[in-house]
Amino acid sequence: METIFNHRSIRQYKDKPIDNSVLNKILEAGTRASTTGNMQVYSIVVTKDEALKNQLWEAHFKQDMVKQAPVVLTFCADFNRFTKWCELRKANPGYDNFLSFFTAAIDALLAAQNVALEAEHHGLGVCYLGTTTYMAGKIIDILHLPQLVVPVTTLVVGYPDENPPLTDRLPLEAVVHNETYNENVPEKINDWFSPKEAMTYYRSFVKENGKETLAQVFTDVRYTAKDNRFFSQAFLKVIEKQGFGNNEE
Amino acid sequence: METIFNHRSIRQYKDKPIDNSVLNKILEAGTRASTTGNMQVYSIVVTKDEALKNQLWEAHFKQDMVKQAPVVLTFCADFNRFTKWCELRKANPGYDNFLSFFTAAIDALLAAQNVALEAEHHGLGVCYLGTTTYMAGKIIDILHLPQLVVPVTTLVVGYPDENPPLTDRLPLEAVVHNETYNENVPEKINDWFSPKEAMTYYRSFVKENGKETLAQVFTDVRYTAKDNRFFSQAFLKVIEKQGFGNNEE
Repeated sequence: METIFNHRSIRQYKDKPIDNSVLNKILEAGTRASTTGNMQVYSIVVTKDEALKNQLWEAHFKQDMVKQAPVVLTFCADFNRFTKWCELRKANPGYDNFLSFFTAAIDALLAAQNVALEAEHHGLGVCYLGTTTYMAGKIIDILHLPQLVVPVTTLVVGYPDENPPLTDRLPLEAVVHNETYNENVPEKINDWFSPKEAMTYYRSFVKENGKETLAQVFTDVRYTAKDNRFFSQAFLKVIEKQGFGNNEE
Repeated sequence: METIFNHRSIRQYKDKPIDNSVLNKILEAGTRASTTGNMQVYSIVVTKDEALKNQLWEAHFKQDMVKQAPVVLTFCADFNRFTKWCELRKANPGYDNFLSFFTAAIDALLAAQNVALEAEHHGLGVCYLGTTTYMAGKIIDILHLPQLVVPVTTLVVGYPDENPPLTDRLPLEAVVHNETYNENVPEKINDWFSPKEAMTYYRSFVKENGKETLAQVFTDVRYTAKDNRFFSQAFLKVIEKQGFGNNEE
């Protein structure tokens, strides 16, 4: 499908709003994704207000596209609505646990990818914000997310003001395994990663960061053990604080 | 996009294999999805072998579509490959924590939804298996998943042998929130869920299960607190056992 194979993340947006009819179509596309037991245990918060977008920009490590894009969509694992429905219908909901959180996160992420593709189909550009899980606590405050709601990803959406090339990917055989998992032996790792490491783009990236290898840019600069552990603790605390911590039988 | 709006889960498949060229195209579509820092921290295990599919069928609560569909795709959060690359490049990877697991799970789920849509675009049918997280430990054994690899969802894929109607969804305003989260007040819950509860399909469903309300079918039969907590513990143990439990700073 052309839309899938043409995807590139857009980080520069035009100062042009999105028509409500288009936005609604995109959001509706999200609701057509598969959802566990047709429970639809996710929510999408649509933020256009400048003051709120500024707060989200701050939370998302001040990435300018959050301010530039006309619409910010925060996708949340959400068992709040379903639980309230159960309570109104003489049923005893038990969705205050980790499995339910993860189930709801899957729902939210499948919906997000439908929204991303439908947006691109309408000539819009999107970019996912990985900072959503890092800063979930802050985002919960900004968007007033209640119990049993946790943000898991964010899409900024708008009309592209850049036309970047397709991003490189590892060869298919690096990510696809035949029947069972095929061990990642060193020769294969070399075959898969060497073409990427040889690219001018990545070679400058290594130099700019004063590192010896591309891998070191990831481990020492972009995604460090220290940050990962810090944000792991923060995210686990958020999951518990939002009411998904009841795992005792 | 027509493919998105035509999606229905398929649970009956024809006894007809999928051409390798089609299968590869579908898998390649998965790799075009956004991935955190272009790390591609996911893997797709393609299982066609009858004996292995039988084992997976057993793990997935004996849902017959696992045996019937020619191809079973297990999507895994995977920091094994990336970590091995770092180790071969004088870098010290720190991806043995919960945030990294969740980041990799996001990658895997966005790829899965691309695969699902591309499959449907080629006339194939798909169904997600929520049992993947319930039975992750068993699936790890069957597919020989190494450290830093955890299955997060599964798609069965094949040519449809049924043509089910579109599944009902809540009205858009139930899942979409304007600027910040809109509280789920009882009147709204009633408005959103009553049309569903009035459907003949769901009314028979309630009767067959000997329950008073549809919500009770969910809480007492389909997704019980007891099961959710049991599988929460199991899944958390799997995440730790696979090497994602190092959250101490």
